[in-house]
Amino acid sequence: MISEDHIGALRKILGPKGLLSGCDDMSAYETGARYDHGRAAFVARPATTQEVSAVVSHCVRHGLPLVAQSGNTGLVSGSTPDGTGTQGILSLDRLTGICELDRVNRTVHAGAGLRLSDLNGRLEDEGLFFPIDLGADPRLGGMIATNTGGSRFLRYGDVRRNTLGLKVVLADERGTVLDLCSGLRKNNTGIDWKQLFIGTSGSFGVITECVLNVEPLPRQSATALLVPSSPAHVPALLLAMEDALGDGLSAFEGMSGHAVAAALDHVPSLRNPFQAGVVPDFVILAEISRTNAPREGEQGLQSVLEDVLGLIWEGEDGLLEDAFVGPTHEMWALRHALSEGVRHAGRLIAFDLSFRRGDVMRFLAYMKQELPQHYTGITICDFGHIGDGGVHFNLVVAKDDPRLADPAFEPALREFVFRVAVEEFDGSFSAEHAVGRKNQAVYDRYTPAGVRRLAAALKANISPGPLGAAIF
Amino acid sequence: MISEDHIGALRKILGPKGLLSGCDDMSAYETGARYDHGRAAFVARPATTQEVSAVVSHCVRHGLPLVAQSGNTGLVSGSTPDGTGTQGILSLDRLTGICELDRVNRTVHAGAGLRLSDLNGRLEDEGLFFPIDLGADPRLGGMIATNTGGSRFLRYGDVRRNTLGLKVVLADERGTVLDLCSGLRKNNTGIDWKQLFIGTSGSFGVITECVLNVEPLPRQSATALLVPSSPAHVPALLLAMEDALGDGLSAFEGMSGHAVAAALDHVPSLRNPFQAGVVPDFVILAEISRTNAPREGEQGLQSVLEDVLGLIWEGEDGLLEDAFVGPTHEMWALRHALSEGVRHAGRLIAFDLSFRRGDVMRFLAYMKQELPQHYTGITICDFGHIGDGGVHFNLVVAKDDPRLADPAFEPALREFVFRVAVEEFDGSFSAEHAVGRKNQAVYDRYTPAGVRRLAAALKANISPGPLGAAIF
Repeated sequence: MISEDHIGALRKILGPKGLLSGCDDMSAYETGARYDHGRAAFVARPATTQEVSAVVSHCVRHGLPLVAQSGNTGLVSGSTPDGTGTQGILSLDRLTGICELDRVNRTVHAGAGLRLSDLNGRLEDEGLFFPIDLGADPRLGGMIATNTGGSRFLRYGDVRRNTLGLKVVLADERGTVLDLCSGLRKNNTGIDWKQLFIGTSGSFGVITECVLNVEPLPRQSATALLVPSSPAHVPALLLAMEDALGDGLSAFEGMSGHAVAAALDHVPSLRNPFQAGVVPDFVILAEISRTNAPREGEQGLQSVLEDVLGLIWEGEDGLLEDAFVGPTHEMWALRHALSEGVRHAGRLIAFDLSFRRGDVMRFLAYMKQELPQHYTGITICDFGHIGDGGVHFNLVVAKDDPRLADPAFEPALREFVFRVAVEEFDGSFSAEHAVGRKNQAVYDRYTPAGVRRLAAALKANISPGPLGAAIF
Repeated sequence: MISEDHIGALRKILGPKGLLSGCDDMSAYETGARYDHGRAAFVARPATTQEVSAVVSHCVRHGLPLVAQSGNTGLVSGSTPDGTGTQGILSLDRLTGICELDRVNRTVHAGAGLRLSDLNGRLEDEGLFFPIDLGADPRLGGMIATNTGGSRFLRYGDVRRNTLGLKVVLADERGTVLDLCSGLRKNNTGIDWKQLFIGTSGSFGVITECVLNVEPLPRQSATALLVPSSPAHVPALLLAMEDALGDGLSAFEGMSGHAVAAALDHVPSLRNPFQAGVVPDFVILAEISRTNAPREGEQGLQSVLEDVLGLIWEGEDGLLEDAFVGPTHEMWALRHALSEGVRHAGRLIAFDLSFRRGDVMRFLAYMKQELPQHYTGITICDFGHIGDGGVHFNLVVAKDDPRLADPAFEPALREFVFRVAVEEFDGSFSAEHAVGRKNQAVYDRYTPAGVRRLAAALKANISPGPLGAAIF
């Protein structure tokens, strides 16, 4: 139980609007997007970097643990407190005061509390956007702390690639502010400190501002669903598309038939686009796009995509069983419905894995073969980003499956999947969701002891206070 | 003077081919590409990561300082020993044994001693290349330690963006090997340790292997020289080109008239492409390129570029005074001759600066106005990468200028330029050459004391041994 003295001190820093505690309703902050619910000692809602610094300084000096919370849309329990009621939440939701576009530099300087949709709303009139395409609508600080990737990674990269500068408050007694808010695209003047805060789940500092690269909005796009003649042909199909389309390929997403069926089932308004309504085993959503102003006489992208698919279709390799160019909106609606679809298909046990691009389909084929040898009656509803090696590997268990009552069942299943993914396929146990509390045990297992020691030394020396959900 | 015991111990690790010392000719290793010449205690030439580890371990345990040397093409004295004769060189030039392409992943796993030209030679048959375009031909380890950018940064980014994995030997008593050789494109499982070694001039560890992203070779390109109606119109011209061409724009390089004249003067075989041979004050080299396989009926890129320039020409803003699409090879030959040209125009005092894109031309205009107020008779021969804010700001002083005899002249001039660039324009004192010994004093001056303390703590905890030319 936190003392009234501390509450008083924090209220003095933050003003009455800036602090929730005691009888206030903190449940929205205590509850994660999907999996987690904890109890907070308080919720601090600073509106400036200086207030963040004062809060962090007070908490570090008095040993009060803090968890920074951004949009609270994460899936690894990185932004909510645990169940002890001893951790305070430092919410970024009032750090929204800054949003300055530098048109020539093609960068925006923004508060870490701005939502992705707000940022993109403000950029739209300028024909620009922050090119990270996600199902959720996070705030910027959390996007940086988890280094989100998403569906257009193939074309635009991750948040790391698009972050030019940060302002960060370290977890030390002073609440030291590191002003790394450079808008420079080329700058090699020592350690690139911002990298320490990108993708480390908020444990090394509280991100309060950022300078982001923004990109021209695509002015034209075309989308197709591709049915490979065999899942094993998917890598060759990706290379053929990259060869034919070059940089124009902006998404190459894989969708298992089980995931598609779950989405069609859950969202009845979705049109079933497949012949006679028969969902194939595996489908690719491929998108090409262009940002340039249309030129007279330029071939339209839909026609380009049709031509390219025609050439691949006629190729000797027989890569395609079916392919159809269709309405972009409809096809992406199907893609974006997968996540909710699989959640409603039963009890979801989800993994955010990645592999070298050539190993994704090998891993899926291996699991299709091996999983039933160990666990019967589990449906694999994977989907993901074949173009960059990411797979949302979803296992769905019937809700009335008696094994779910066994507390050892899910941990053992998770261990089996991680072992295959990391040990046998050299993959990542967290492609784009970062570590958080949820992946802590996996981090501890698969990070070499020497690297963990280096991480602990770094934490102890740079930002030693009790900050964040993940422990490095 | 290093003892025979140490030489014996190192020879035992490296074998007779692996060590130069004493009477051996070490001058090629002791002499930098342009500015520096030092004296080495020995040259260690390990052929494997294990040998690197053993050498580093021996040297750290016995307090022998080491400077890692890659292709030795750097311009900041980061790869050569100082004049004391106490530093050993650890050359990467035999770390060339690995070069494995993963075609589906579009990555190559390579030894850090491989030269850029060797790597690209091996990739060419596959239609791929490592997309960092430089005047020099460095080895990969040094490219990573300096985070080189180059002329196609606008399209492909820097080395950081294209580095997926590293193997590094830390400067500790064990010569700890950090194996970060992942080929994963998405991976957020803790601290991204490789970032600590990218762009830090070799002070945090010796890079022995790397996994790099490779890109499809452009199959078509077109190049134009643009003469802006005023240098102040260059940013608007850049935005107009990006708007019209989207991702197709692969270079947007600025060349001052003085730099062009120096190149034409120094390389008589270059054709003077300008009307009546009159070199304009400022010229842009713009390149567009495509990687896709040509499609029937697709408009050729030269025609695209002509159309776009026609539209800009007719635009109401009057951005262009002249523009001509020409032979790509000839135009790039002019661009690539600038560096040698300005070196031969007199005594060169060179700066590798960067700015937000909108500030590049403002800085140049300011300097054109202000420099003569402080220093008469100095020719500004700048050129650089307007598309990413980088400027090679070159000052040329007549070789017989009596001020050159004054040892205070060049330091004062450098201080003046750095002050304007960093303090008044928020720019970087090292855009793409990193720190090294040459920029140490500037690093010390412009890095906040708190950040320098963090860097020192990081060095002391992670990789404490005396390694590298720059001191963080």
